[in-house]
Amino acid sequence: MTDSNLLESRWAAISARLVKDGADALVLSTGFDLVYLSTYEARASERLTAFVGRPGSNELPRMIVPKIEMPEVPKTSAFDISGWTDDQDPIAMIVELIGDARRVLVSDEMWAHYLLRLKAAMPDTEFVSLSDSLGGLRSVKSDSEMQALQTVGGLANSVAAQIQRGDVALVGRTELEIQADVTGRMLAAGHEQVEFCIVASGPNSASPHHNPTERVVQPNEIVLFDFGGKHEGYCSDITRCVFTGPIPDDVAATYAILKKAQQAAVDAARPGATLGDVDAAARSVIADAGFGDNFIHRTGHGIGTEVHEQPYVIAGNDEVVAVGHAFSIEPGIYLDGKWGMRLEDIVVILDDGALRCSTTDHDLVEVDA
Amino acid sequence: MTDSNLLESRWAAISARLVKDGADALVLSTGFDLVYLSTYEARASERLTAFVGRPGSNELPRMIVPKIEMPEVPKTSAFDISGWTDDQDPIAMIVELIGDARRVLVSDEMWAHYLLRLKAAMPDTEFVSLSDSLGGLRSVKSDSEMQALQTVGGLANSVAAQIQRGDVALVGRTELEIQADVTGRMLAAGHEQVEFCIVASGPNSASPHHNPTERVVQPNEIVLFDFGGKHEGYCSDITRCVFTGPIPDDVAATYAILKKAQQAAVDAARPGATLGDVDAAARSVIADAGFGDNFIHRTGHGIGTEVHEQPYVIAGNDEVVAVGHAFSIEPGIYLDGKWGMRLEDIVVILDDGALRCSTTDHDLVEVDA
Repeated sequence: MTDSNLLESRWAAISARLVKDGADALVLSTGFDLVYLSTYEARASERLTAFVGRPGSNELPRMIVPKIEMPEVPKTSAFDISGWTDDQDPIAMIVELIGDARRVLVSDEMWAHYLLRLKAAMPDTEFVSLSDSLGGLRSVKSDSEMQALQTVGGLANSVAAQIQRGDVALVGRTELEIQADVTGRMLAAGHEQVEFCIVASGPNSASPHHNPTERVVQPNEIVLFDFGGKHEGYCSDITRCVFTGPIPDDVAATYAILKKAQQAAVDAARPGATLGDVDAAARSVIADAGFGDNFIHRTGHGIGTEVHEQPYVIAGNDEVVAVGHAFSIEPGIYLDGKWGMRLEDIVVILDDGALRCSTTDHDLVEVDA
Repeated sequence: MTDSNLLESRWAAISARLVKDGADALVLSTGFDLVYLSTYEARASERLTAFVGRPGSNELPRMIVPKIEMPEVPKTSAFDISGWTDDQDPIAMIVELIGDARRVLVSDEMWAHYLLRLKAAMPDTEFVSLSDSLGGLRSVKSDSEMQALQTVGGLANSVAAQIQRGDVALVGRTELEIQADVTGRMLAAGHEQVEFCIVASGPNSASPHHNPTERVVQPNEIVLFDFGGKHEGYCSDITRCVFTGPIPDDVAATYAILKKAQQAAVDAARPGATLGDVDAAARSVIADAGFGDNFIHRTGHGIGTEVHEQPYVIAGNDEVVAVGHAFSIEPGIYLDGKWGMRLEDIVVILDDGALRCSTTDHDLVEVDA
C-alpha cells in the first residue's frame, strides 16, 4: 500500500466512526492523531496547524498550515492543503469549511487558545474531545503496527537483558551516570530516539516517575529501570528491577506478589474482558496480599506512536479489550521512604489473548555490578 | 532572592494583573507559564498537572499534580501541593477550589481535553485564553532575565562566527551532516540543549522553516542557518546566511535591502512604539524595493524560556513596546524555487531603545568552505 492509500483507508475508517458518533466534523491540531492521518509531524506552536475533515462527504480532508511550513507537508492525494500567512486568520479558514457543523470533535491536545477562538467563532456548535467521544483514533493497531511494536519491544528487551546480566555498572555510580549509560545502549540497540529513562535507586524507587539524580547507588538495594524509545515511529516501554546484592526475604516475597499480579493481568487481557477487568486482575492480587494502598497508579496505558495513548488499563474503564489493542501491564508496590518495585510488559491483543512484546526475564535479578 | 521569594513576587505581580482584568482565577496546565510561577517542568500528558490561583486572596496558589509525580515537584512556600491518584478526578479538585469563579484565565497550551471537562463542570463560567486577555505572563523580563538572554545570545554568536569564518565545511556535505556539525558546536559553545537548527541550502532556503535534508551543498549558492539553544533556562535564536562562492550582484543587492530592513526595525523597536510599528519598519523597506510579496512572515517573536512566546512583532499588533521586552527581528526575502535569505537578531528593550543580543557580522559573507 502506498502512503496515500494507507491514509485514505485510515480516513475512511475514522469517517465511519465519526458518522456513527453523530459528529459533523473533526478538527485535529498538532499531535500523533495528525501524524496518523497525514504522516505530518507538525510542531505545536503559536501558529496553528489543523487537519479538518467532514465525515461522509466527498470532499477531501484539508490540512490548514502556516504558509512558511507548507513545503514541509507531505504531498499526497489523501488530503488537500491550504497555507495561511501571518496576516491571515486560520480560525476563519476552519469556519469557512465547517461553520455549519453542530457537533465537532477536536483532538485532545488542541491548545485551549485555539479551541476558545473556534468556540467564539462558532458559538452554537458543540465541541467534544476526541477521546471522550470515540475513545481514541489509534487504539486498534493493524498487523504491521503490532509487528512494529514487537520489533521495538525487542530492542528494549536486549537492553534490559544487559542490565540483568550485570553489563551496566551500578554500585558507586550516580543515577544520572547510569541513565546516560542506558540511553547509550538504547540507541546502540537500534532505537532512533530515547523517549525517557528512569533510573531509581534505593528509596528513590518508591517514586514511580522519579527523575534520576546525583544519588550514588549503594550495595544491597533495589534499582528500578523504566525506559522506552522509538524505532520507525513506534515506542518501546519496559520496567525491570534488579538488586545490588543478595535479595532479602521480605523483598523476594513482595516481588513474588508483584510478579503474580502482573501475570494475572496478562492472563485477563483477552478480547471480551474490559480494561477495568485487567486492572482488577492485578490489583486484587496485590490487595489480597495486603499491599492495596501501595499500588498507587493504574495498571497500564496504551502505546503505539506515543508512549502513552488510548486505551488506559484503569479501574472502572468499561471499554472492551479488542484484537489490535496494545498496552502496558505494569503493577507496582511502593513503600514510601524504603523502596518500590514495578514490573512492566507491553502486550498486544490477539484472538486468543495477550502476546508479550517484553520478554526479558521477569524475576528480580541479583546483579553483581 | 531565594526561589520562594522570586516565585512569590511573580505571583503577586500576576495576581495584580488578574485583578485588573477582572479574572477570578487562573488555571495553568503544563508549559512555561507553569515553570515561571513554580519552577516545575511538568511533562504534558493524559494525567493533568494544574496550577490554580485566586488573585487577591490570601490563599496560596495550589499545584494539583498526579500523586506519582509529587516527589518531583519543588518544595517552596510559594504554593501548596495536592496529589491525585488514578482513581480520583483532578477536574473535581479544581472545581472545589474555584467553582464559584465567573471569569477564569487558562494557559494557552492547556489541552482541549481538560478545558472541555472544566467547562462541562463549570458551565456558567467564562474561560479566556491567557494571551488573549493579558497578552502573556512573561513578556516583560527582569534585569537578570535580560542578562541571561545576552549570555545565551553570546553562545549562538560564537557559532555563527565559526560558520562565517569557514570553520564549518559546506560544499559537498549534506544539510543533515552540516546540521549535526552545527548542533555539536552549539553544545560545545555552552548550550545545554539544542532547540532547533535549520540548514537550508540553495532553493531550500526559500522555505523559511525548512527541515534539513540529504541535499548536498553546491558551490555558488546561499546557505541559510537559523539555530537556537538553551543555557540556564533561556533561549538563543539567530539567523545568518553565507554564500559558497563570489556573491552575484543581484543577491548582494537584495541582501542590502534585507539588511537595511532589519536595521530599520531595530531602530523602530523603542518604548512607546507599537509592535506593529516595528513590523512596518522592516516591511516598508522591503515593500518599497518591490519584494513585499516575498516577505511572507511576521517580523519577529518574543523569546525567553521559550523560543517563541509573547509578544509578537506582527502587522496590526497595537501592543506597545516596553522596557524588558525581548524579541527577534528577522525579516526575510524568499524567491520560490530560487533562494531565500533572512537576517535575525534577538533584541532586548532598554529605556533608550533596542540592545542586540546577536552581534555576529550582519553581512552576507562569502565562505571558502
